[in-house]
Amino acid sequence: MAAAKPENLSLVVHGPGDLRLENYPIPEPGPNGDRVAIEPGAPREADEFCKIGRYNLSPTIFFCATPPDDGNLCRFYKHNANFCYKLPDNVTFEEGALIEPLSVGIHACRRAGVTLGHKVFVCGAGPIGLVSLLVAKAMGASQVVVTDLSASRLSKAKEVGADFLLQISNESPQEIANKVEGLLGCKPEVTIECTGVETSIQAGIYATQSGGTLVLVGLGSEMTSVPLVHAATREVDIKGVFRYCNTWPMAISMLASKSVNVKPLVTHRFPLEKALEAFETSKKGLGLKVMIKCDPKDQNP
Amino acid sequence: MAAAKPENLSLVVHGPGDLRLENYPIPEPGPNGDRVAIEPGAPREADEFCKIGRYNLSPTIFFCATPPDDGNLCRFYKHNANFCYKLPDNVTFEEGALIEPLSVGIHACRRAGVTLGHKVFVCGAGPIGLVSLLVAKAMGASQVVVTDLSASRLSKAKEVGADFLLQISNESPQEIANKVEGLLGCKPEVTIECTGVETSIQAGIYATQSGGTLVLVGLGSEMTSVPLVHAATREVDIKGVFRYCNTWPMAISMLASKSVNVKPLVTHRFPLEKALEAFETSKKGLGLKVMIKCDPKDQNP
Amino acid sequence: MAAAKPENLSLVVHGPGDLRLENYPIPEPGPNGDRVAIEPGAPREADEFCKIGRYNLSPTIFFCATPPDDGNLCRFYKHNANFCYKLPDNVTFEEGALIEPLSVGIHACRRAGVTLGHKVFVCGAGPIGLVSLLVAKAMGASQVVVTDLSASRLSKAKEVGADFLLQISNESPQEIANKVEGLLGCKPEVTIECTGVETSIQAGIYATQSGGTLVLVGLGSEMTSVPLVHAATREVDIKGVFRYCNTWPMAISMLASKSVNVKPLVTHRFPLEKALEAFETSKKGLGLKVMIKCDPKDQNP
Amino acid sequence: MAAAKPENLSLVVHGPGDLRLENYPIPEPGPNGDRVAIEPGAPREADEFCKIGRYNLSPTIFFCATPPDDGNLCRFYKHNANFCYKLPDNVTFEEGALIEPLSVGIHACRRAGVTLGHKVFVCGAGPIGLVSLLVAKAMGASQVVVTDLSASRLSKAKEVGADFLLQISNESPQEIANKVEGLLGCKPEVTIECTGVETSIQAGIYATQSGGTLVLVGLGSEMTSVPLVHAATREVDIKGVFRYCNTWPMAISMLASKSVNVKPLVTHRFPLEKALEAFETSKKGLGLKVMIKCDPKDQNP
Repeated sequence: MAAAKPENLSLVVHGPGDLRLENYPIPEPGPNGDRVAIEPGAPREADEFCKIGRYNLSPTIFFCATPPDDGNLCRFYKHNANFCYKLPDNVTFEEGALIEPLSVGIHACRRAGVTLGHKVFVCGAGPIGLVSLLVAKAMGASQVVVTDLSASRLSKAKEVGADFLLQISNESPQEIANKVEGLLGCKPEVTIECTGVETSIQAGIYATQSGGTLVLVGLGSEMTSVPLVHAATREVDIKGVFRYCNTWPMAISMLASKSVNVKPLVTHRFPLEKALEAFETSKKGLGLKVMIKCDPKDQNP
Repeated sequence: MAAAKPENLSLVVHGPGDLRLENYPIPEPGPNGDRVAIEPGAPREADEFCKIGRYNLSPTIFFCATPPDDGNLCRFYKHNANFCYKLPDNVTFEEGALIEPLSVGIHACRRAGVTLGHKVFVCGAGPIGLVSLLVAKAMGASQVVVTDLSASRLSKAKEVGADFLLQISNESPQEIANKVEGLLGCKPEVTIECTGVETSIQAGIYATQSGGTLVLVGLGSEMTSVPLVHAATREVDIKGVFRYCNTWPMAISMLASKSVNVKPLVTHRFPLEKALEAFETSKKGLGLKVMIKCDPKDQNP
Repeated sequence: MAAAKPENLSLVVHGPGDLRLENYPIPEPGPNGDRVAIEPGAPREADEFCKIGRYNLSPTIFFCATPPDDGNLCRFYKHNANFCYKLPDNVTFEEGALIEPLSVGIHACRRAGVTLGHKVFVCGAGPIGLVSLLVAKAMGASQVVVTDLSASRLSKAKEVGADFLLQISNESPQEIANKVEGLLGCKPEVTIECTGVETSIQAGIYATQSGGTLVLVGLGSEMTSVPLVHAATREVDIKGVFRYCNTWPMAISMLASKSVNVKPLVTHRFPLEKALEAFETSKKGLGLKVMIKCDPKDQNP
Repeated sequence: MAAAKPENLSLVVHGPGDLRLENYPIPEPGPNGDRVAIEPGAPREADEFCKIGRYNLSPTIFFCATPPDDGNLCRFYKHNANFCYKLPDNVTFEEGALIEPLSVGIHACRRAGVTLGHKVFVCGAGPIGLVSLLVAKAMGASQVVVTDLSASRLSKAKEVGADFLLQISNESPQEIANKVEGLLGCKPEVTIECTGVETSIQAGIYATQSGGTLVLVGLGSEMTSVPLVHAATREVDIKGVFRYCNTWPMAISMLASKSVNVKPLVTHRFPLEKALEAFETSKKGLGLKVMIKCDPKDQNP
C-alpha cells in the first residue's frame, strides 16, 4: 500500500446516512508495506473465543466500518498486520475486495458441512445467496437449487452455476419444500437461508433432509415463528453465522487456483471519488455488487 | 429370557387408552436365549441413514410400542438379536430397564457435545431433565443448573446431582437467562431443553453462550416463536433429538462401572399384573419413573 | 440386470493365480431387477461397527472377490439390494465400474478432511494416487502435488488435474518434503500416501503441515520405521483406510453432475470372454485401469 | 501475587544442569495483579495456527522455561494477562500448580476423543499416565487399564482410579495387547501411550479397537519401528500431542467442582529456597510430582 500522493482521500461517516469524502492524513505504516487483502474483523485480545479459533464471536472484536470506525474506503489504511493477507500476483485487487463477501459464503458452507456430492438448497439469489452457491459448488456440492422472487436475480444464479432455479410467487413453505425435493430428486442435505424472511426459513426447515443442516445467513425480525418440532424430531440442525473467521487464506487459495470465478458478482464499478454515487446505486438495488476502487491506478475490472 | 411357565402375560393395546392384559403365545426364541437389554428401535433394513450410523432417522425403523406393535410389556418378547445387549452380571434388570430413558439423556448430551468442564443448563426436572443431568455430569460437566416450576421435582434434581436449582414462577425468558448466568458465573456452553414450552425454549436461546448449543428434547406445539436472530448471530446451534442411536453399549458400560446411579429415578414399582394401575399412577403425575416388572421372580428394586 | 441368454459366463477362482472362465447357473433375482452399481462390501449383520456408520470395519463383512467368493466378473450376479445403487441415466456402466476405485479416493480424502483451499500432497501416481487426486480437487483442494518414479505416470497425473509434479529419483525423505514445500509455497495440510514404500511414508510425515493429516492408503511391509516423534510433536495425525464406506451415493452424485471425469483412468478394455488376457495386461503393469466389460451389449468406452 | 519482600528469589538456568538460585528484580506488574494460574505457553502473535484455535502449534509461541527464558520458579513473574486465569477461592495454589500436568492429560484425552463409556488403555503409570487416567475417568471412561514395569507406580494408579493394572515384565507387544483385551473384555477404543518406548507403542497399536485412536504422549527415539499396516487397515488413528491448548479454563472448572482429585499426585514438597534439592529428588525418580512452593506463606499441601 505504498503512497503516491500525500493526501489520503477517505469516506467518512458523520452520522446515519451522512457520508462525506474528506482528506485525511496518511497513517504511518508499520515495517511490512505488501499487496494485501484486509480481513476487517480482528480481535483486540486473545480471549477464550479467540483461543478456540472462533474469534468472530469475541465480544471485543474490532471491525472496520463498525462505528466509530469510518471503515477502509480510503486511499491509505492501517490495519493489524496479522489480519492482512498477501495477495498472490495472479489475484487482482478487485478479486481481493471480493474475499469479504466470499468469506460469508465460505463460513456459511463450512458451518453447514457442505461436502462432496451434497445437494444444497440456497434461499435467495442476492449477493450472499450467490457466494454461498459459488462456494457450495467449489466444495463439491453436486446439485444446487436457488430460489428467489426475481427472475433476473435467478438468471444471475444460473450464470454462476446453479443447477436448478425456482422462482417463488405465492407458494406456501411446504409447497416450496416439495418443489425443491422434486427438482433434486431428494431432500437436500443442506439449506442456506439468505433472505431472513419467515416463510423462507420455514421452507428451509421443511425442505432439509433428516439429519441435515439449515444455516441462517439472512437476518429477519427479532422473533420468528418456525416449525421447531419438525426440525427437532428430524434432527435438522439450525445454525447461524456471525460474519466469518478463518476464511481469508482459504479464499485466497481459491482465487489463486482459479477454482472460483467471482467476476460475475461485480455489476458496477466506481472510483473512490464517486463513492457517494456508488452508495446510491447500491441503495436503489440496481446492481449486485457495487465496487468502489480506492487505488487511482486500478480502475479496470 | 428362558420360559418357566407356558403362558405369556402381555399388555395389549386395543385402541387409544384401551390397554388390556391378555395371555399370548410364547414366541419361539432364536438360538441365543441370554440376560439382555432390548433397544426398542431397530432398523428394518440398511438404508442410507443406517449406513452412516444414524439409524434412528431411518423412515422404516421398527419401534416397539409404536402401533401396531403392542410393545414389550409381556413375559416373553422376541426381538432382533443385534439390538439385544447382554447385561453384565452386576447390572440389575431394573437398571437395564432404565437404559431407555438414560439413552435419551446420552443422545441429547452427545448431540450437545457436552464435555469436561462444561457448564450446562437443563430446563425441566422431569424424567428426561434428570437423565440429561445425570449424563451431563457423567460426561464431565462441572456445573449444571436445573429449572422447574415444581419445588419437589427440583429437590429430586438436587438429589441426583444438580449444582444449582432455579424455581421458575413468572420470570420472562430474559430474566431466566440472567439468573442462570448469575448462578454459573457465566453463560452455559450447553442448554438442554426438556419441557417443550415456548418461553423455556426462548430462555434457552438467551441463556446459551455464543458458539454453544441448545438441544431441544421436549416437544411443544407445531409452531414456535423464537428469537432466531439472537441465536443465529451468536452462533448458538439449535439441535433436536429423535429418540437415540448407539447408546445401549455406552449406557451398559456406565451402569456396569457404577459411574451413574439411576436408582433414584424409580419412584414406583408394579408387577406386570398391575400394569394398568402403573399407567394410572404415571398419568396422574404422581411419580417420576414408574417401573413395571415383567419377570415374576424379579420384583425387588 | 434381466437375462437375455440362459448361460452365466463367470470368471471363477480355482486357486491362487488359477482363474478360469466357466458357465454358471443364473442366480434367481429378487423383486428389484434395475441398472445399478454394486458396492462389493456389504455387512452381514448390524454389529456395533455398522451401527456407528463404519461398516467397512465390521469383522463379518461380506466382500465380493474375497475367497471363497468368486467375485462378480460374470454376466449375472446376485447382491444385497441395499448395497446396489441405481445409476442415473447419464452415468454409463463404465463410469459405474469406476465407482469402486473412486471410492478409495473418496474415503481417503474424507478421512484426511480435505476441504476448500487445501494444499494436498499425493505420493504415487498409480490408480489410487490418481483417484485421490481427482477427489481432492473435487473437494476443493486448491493445489495438489503428485510424486512418482515414473514420468509417464506423472504425465497422466497432469492430465487428470495435478498442479505440480515431482519425479522422484534418489532424494532422501527430507529432500522430498522440502521440494514439496517449495512447489506449494508452504507445507500441505494433507498428504495421501499411495505407495506403501517406507521412505515415501517418511517423506509424508516430514512434508505435512503441523496439525495436518497423513493418510496411509498404500500398503507396505508389516513393520515400518518412521519418525513418529516428528509427527507426534507437530500433531500430524496418521490415519489409515480400510476400503471405504458410505461412498457410493456420493460418487454417483459426482458422476451424474459431471463434477469429476474418470474416463482418463481407463487405459484398456476387454470383453468378459478375454478376462484372462485383461489380468495379464494388468499384471504386466502396462496400463492404469484395465476394464472388463461383462455386458456383451456394452463394449464401447 | 502481592509482594511481601522487595527481593525476587528466582531459579536461574545458567546452562544444561546448571541451575542457581539468585535474587532478581521484581517485574513491574500490569493493571490486573489477581490470584491466578499461569498457562506457560502464550502465542506471541495471531498467526494462522492461533486463528484456528491450535496456538500450541504456533512456531513463534513463547513458553516459560524454554531457554533463554528462566521459567517461573521465582517469587514474582510477569506474564501475558490473557494467559493468566483467575483461580476460584476453593482452588488452592497447589492445585493451581497441577493444572499444567493435568493439561497434558486433558489435551491427550481430548485428542483421543475419550467420552462416556469408553474403555481406555494407558501405557505407563508415571505422572503423565496418571493425569491421563484421571482425566479419562472424569470424561466418563468406564474402564481404564494401566500398565507399568513398576508395582509401586501401579499401586498409585490404583489409588487414583485405575480399574485394572497390568505389570509388564517381558511380554511381547501382542501379548500385552491380548492381556489388555482380556482384562477389559474387549479392545479399548482409546490407548494413551505415555512411555515413548517402542514396544509399548507397538502394543498400543495391537491393542486398540478398529476405528479407535492411539495417542502418543511419551516421546522416544527419532525413528520408531511400528506395525503401521496393522494400524492403517484397522483405521486406528495415530495422533500426537504438543503440550496443550485451551485446557486451563476446563481444568479450573474441574478443580473448582471437585470432579477430579489431583492431590495424590504430589509426593514431595519443597520451598523455593530448596529448589535444587527438589530437582535432585525428581532426577532420582524418588517421587511422582515434586512440588516447589514459591510463595513463602503457602507451604502446606
